[in-house]
Amino acid sequence: MTIKTYMQSLGTAAREASRVLARANSDSKNNALMAIAKQLDANRNAVLAANKLDMDKGRNNGLNDALLDRLELNNERVDAMIEGLQQVAELSDPIGELTDLGTRPSGIKLAKMRVPLGVIGIIYESRPNVTIDAASLCLKSGNATILRGGSEAIESNQAIAQCIKLGLADAGLPENAVQVINTTDRAAVGELITMTNFVDVIVPRGGKGLIERISADARVPVIKHLDGNCHVYIDDDADLDKAVTIAVNAKTHRYGVCNAMESLLVAESVAAKVLPVIADIYGEKSVEMRGCANSCNILPSISAASESDWSEEYLAPIVAIKVVAGIDEAIEHINTYSSQHTESIITEDSASGQRFIAEVDSSSVMINASTRFADGFEYGLGAEIGISTDKIHARGPVGLEGLTSQKWVVFGDGQIRQ
Amino acid sequence: MTIKTYMQSLGTAAREASRVLARANSDSKNNALMAIAKQLDANRNAVLAANKLDMDKGRNNGLNDALLDRLELNNERVDAMIEGLQQVAELSDPIGELTDLGTRPSGIKLAKMRVPLGVIGIIYESRPNVTIDAASLCLKSGNATILRGGSEAIESNQAIAQCIKLGLADAGLPENAVQVINTTDRAAVGELITMTNFVDVIVPRGGKGLIERISADARVPVIKHLDGNCHVYIDDDADLDKAVTIAVNAKTHRYGVCNAMESLLVAESVAAKVLPVIADIYGEKSVEMRGCANSCNILPSISAASESDWSEEYLAPIVAIKVVAGIDEAIEHINTYSSQHTESIITEDSASGQRFIAEVDSSSVMINASTRFADGFEYGLGAEIGISTDKIHARGPVGLEGLTSQKWVVFGDGQIRQ
Repeated sequence: MTIKTYMQSLGTAAREASRVLARANSDSKNNALMAIAKQLDANRNAVLAANKLDMDKGRNNGLNDALLDRLELNNERVDAMIEGLQQVAELSDPIGELTDLGTRPSGIKLAKMRVPLGVIGIIYESRPNVTIDAASLCLKSGNATILRGGSEAIESNQAIAQCIKLGLADAGLPENAVQVINTTDRAAVGELITMTNFVDVIVPRGGKGLIERISADARVPVIKHLDGNCHVYIDDDADLDKAVTIAVNAKTHRYGVCNAMESLLVAESVAAKVLPVIADIYGEKSVEMRGCANSCNILPSISAASESDWSEEYLAPIVAIKVVAGIDEAIEHINTYSSQHTESIITEDSASGQRFIAEVDSSSVMINASTRFADGFEYGLGAEIGISTDKIHARGPVGLEGLTSQKWVVFGDGQIRQ
Repeated sequence: MTIKTYMQSLGTAAREASRVLARANSDSKNNALMAIAKQLDANRNAVLAANKLDMDKGRNNGLNDALLDRLELNNERVDAMIEGLQQVAELSDPIGELTDLGTRPSGIKLAKMRVPLGVIGIIYESRPNVTIDAASLCLKSGNATILRGGSEAIESNQAIAQCIKLGLADAGLPENAVQVINTTDRAAVGELITMTNFVDVIVPRGGKGLIERISADARVPVIKHLDGNCHVYIDDDADLDKAVTIAVNAKTHRYGVCNAMESLLVAESVAAKVLPVIADIYGEKSVEMRGCANSCNILPSISAASESDWSEEYLAPIVAIKVVAGIDEAIEHINTYSSQHTESIITEDSASGQRFIAEVDSSSVMINASTRFADGFEYGLGAEIGISTDKIHARGPVGLEGLTSQKWVVFGDGQIRQ
């Protein structure tokens, strides 16, 4: 069987399963989630044994420690997957929700009904727990899924896929509601992202390189999460205590996350006062600072930033610092260099706050809060499949609702168009 | 200047203008719409003279009568454009609308704010009035626009563009908020649909061929309106009077529109009774009928349908007729052959109605109503830029809201992530 034939067979099966899932009620989907959790628990040893094969191969292939850590499963991580399934089962089901739009002059009654997208393709890298995360959110939102994990995790993913199939069967839902591609051939990805008749949306989860590659070649719409070059801007009218606390939290709470601040902008009028305080704390935490000429004047010990620093997503204890004339330059700088993920202004002036949230073109805009709040759990979505830096369809943290669409529903009693 | 350089300069100017438009208030946008209407009225002769050049060239190039009719402007059509501008000015402005999502456990207040998409590229064919339609909806929703009309309408479109620029200037908004591409070189379209840094979404308006071509090559997201292969299904439990009225209206009210019915499905149990009544009326109206074997048994004078008839968007007085076993086969047939535009079931059985709307995967699903209601005006959107057969972002009739996005807005008081 060629890769094309194989992928078409997955696509056909996914499309068929998606029709059953679209009409499955919440109980039946929740039963399936719980049955998958049970199977994962019952087949824990098989999953861990499969993971050991991946780990051994990874070590032989010279994967670095960080990658091996992401690849590794242990009892604790299997427990976390089981808990994740239970949490998704507890989320409320968005499907079937009717928004009543009233009666039109023609006499027809109009509503919108929330429905699944259909078939979702998920492409991800090394972590095998994404197999469960992604499958459970898609299942709960009534979508069939075709999953393509990293080649280094193929044994683990196939073992997890087996548990999912058993759980789906236990709950009386089609086994093909979740399919994990069983080949590491890259051509399979090429097929997946171009099968517009079988796949409704692609969600790539991974580094910027993966996502850019997929976006460039996809014919199926992609919900993109590119990078998080997030900014905090300390305004002329900032409360400097809040400014310090937030600048420190946004940069140092966790370094490797997309909602960490990467660039700090400070209004000229407060820079000499606030920057030394912040720099002391960054220094204690060994954060490398790269500043504009003005920042370097105020903080002589830091290094000079180059043009490329303004666009960088460090994901590391490094921060770029720029002194700006005021809110105009701050907004201009952000709209030029930001990845449109999350930006925050620190100000006590509500007019400045309003301008910032209206004019900064990012998926999350904040006043006096840490960028670290841009997160599905913090926003109350219950779970997230990613954070979209697109403006189309889903923007910012994407939960169950981002995996759905709405159709128009018309209730008539024989009405015709005059 | 190369086409690439030219398009990049349009893109840069559009992006700059979009930032001003995004913060323009409703009054200022409405003033601009009214000022454009005034300029169109004042420069009516220049617009009609430019259109005459296009018409003369079109005749010389052998355009057929239908195309010449679509291309032609006259006083009545200019009046209609002016009226369209006034109607859009009267629509309520979606931008800035805040949906309050309450206070999260962390203490942050969360909301969603409706914002423009940014820059919208519109690609259309011969009718020059689309220049005004599209520009006005984009302007009202705070988006900058780059328009590319048909090459046969270039003089008309440039004359209309001049009125738009004058109107924008009168109202103090940037002239580059609406730009009409001034070359007929096809390479300009290629640039427009791939300038992801300057264009946020492409809306193609035209035939299926145009839209498929653009979708295949675009790197910018596309709001697609493909074809309208709409179905009416007459269920076992249909009120046959309603069935006849709706089947006739859906097919014959207008033939060349995307929400016209193209295939009629009839449950076996009522086919012999209802089909002859409908066929008589179709016959009077000279509608050509193409039927399945069972339909041909009931209506011996009609011709046999071939497999391709089930997928056809005739846009003409032709209808495909199929007798089905019941609702299961009807849903299966529709989900196989439909273009996911609009389908209607005629039934008095509410369970069948509910199944139909839940399981038919189309942008509009109806019970006991004519498919002709699938329309932005009938749905109360005030205006529409098209009818999306996509599931992503905008589905069904797309009004002002479909040209917007929502950003997350966080109001804090110094909150940091714990």
